[in-house]
Amino acid sequence: MDYYSRQISKLIQELSTLPGIGAKSAQRLAFHILNMPQEQVEELSTALIDARRNIRYCKECFTLTDEELCPICKDSTRNHKVIMVVENTRDLAAYEKTQKYDGVYHVLHGAISPMLGIGPNEIKLKELMHRLAGEVEEVIIATNSSLEGETTAMYISKLIKPTGIKVTRIASGVPVGGDLEYIDEVTLLRALEGRTEL
Amino acid sequence: MDYYSRQISKLIQELSTLPGIGAKSAQRLAFHILNMPQEQVEELSTALIDARRNIRYCKECFTLTDEELCPICKDSTRNHKVIMVVENTRDLAAYEKTQKYDGVYHVLHGAISPMLGIGPNEIKLKELMHRLAGEVEEVIIATNSSLEGETTAMYISKLIKPTGIKVTRIASGVPVGGDLEYIDEVTLLRALEGRTEL
Repeated sequence: MDYYSRQISKLIQELSTLPGIGAKSAQRLAFHILNMPQEQVEELSTALIDARRNIRYCKECFTLTDEELCPICKDSTRNHKVIMVVENTRDLAAYEKTQKYDGVYHVLHGAISPMLGIGPNEIKLKELMHRLAGEVEEVIIATNSSLEGETTAMYISKLIKPTGIKVTRIASGVPVGGDLEYIDEVTLLRALEGRTEL
Repeated sequence: MDYYSRQISKLIQELSTLPGIGAKSAQRLAFHILNMPQEQVEELSTALIDARRNIRYCKECFTLTDEELCPICKDSTRNHKVIMVVENTRDLAAYEKTQKYDGVYHVLHGAISPMLGIGPNEIKLKELMHRLAGEVEEVIIATNSSLEGETTAMYISKLIKPTGIKVTRIASGVPVGGDLEYIDEVTLLRALEGRTEL
């Protein structure tokens, strides 16, 4: 890429290492950045450094945060007796967007996957069990509906049941607005099994 | 977005201002960045700042560069008597990738567009005319094949012709590998008009 000068080439190369950004997008982004006001580029650059440098796990729920306790765990108006277990911080954000869940979370940072060699010790499971020693009424397992997510849900429920704490799993079925015609058989069967009375 | 902590929200928000990056991609990128080794994030951040801070126009061809003269204008093995006029640095890069053009370039940074209020004075046209005072044998107009690109090509050719310098326009026609069936009528007519003897 010697038709660009050194620093532009370097920027394009750095950008193209990001996920979902190929050579063409990196080029387009780079030229956009070169045309941005300098202060804005500095803000972006600072945001990158700051976020990465100060990132850590919330000591309670293990979500990614920049403080000791995340905003949700710190919030005393939320119901700390109900814990929703999710695979990662993005899944937590997805449920937060519904604005209807007022319990707290526990972020596993992964799911059990014998294929990938990820066992119960590789995810934040011990930390979840530790939290159950406190006053917890219900654990809602909201891992993904994939093979790994289901395995993890099963494993966790078996682990928690002996403690007497209520364990639930989010429902699996036809997505709202989904057209039956295009939905896979496994989901259709799940929707049938999980049918509720009207 | 108060379910993310402040610095993560800030990073997501900064990333989502980039072109082609929506809220979801920004979120995905942010979490990727948070999981990158810190040195790599610092490199990316530095590349952003360095490229933006030192960016300027090549004093000869007006491409974006970080030196006084771009690598192409500095290269004495290239034919400085042939100038290819392009709309932006990415178009220059596109021709450089062919590795077959050995002349130099002139970057207009735009095209004449009465619709958008961009006249001949808003692009680097005076600068091109200034260069023609030197030893120039041919000006190849390689603006895009859009309405604005064609208008610009026409305008430039009218301006240069009186000087006696040869002015050419890159060919317009069916792209290599293109299927006639899917090509628009204007392109098909252009290809017919521009037919060459075999």
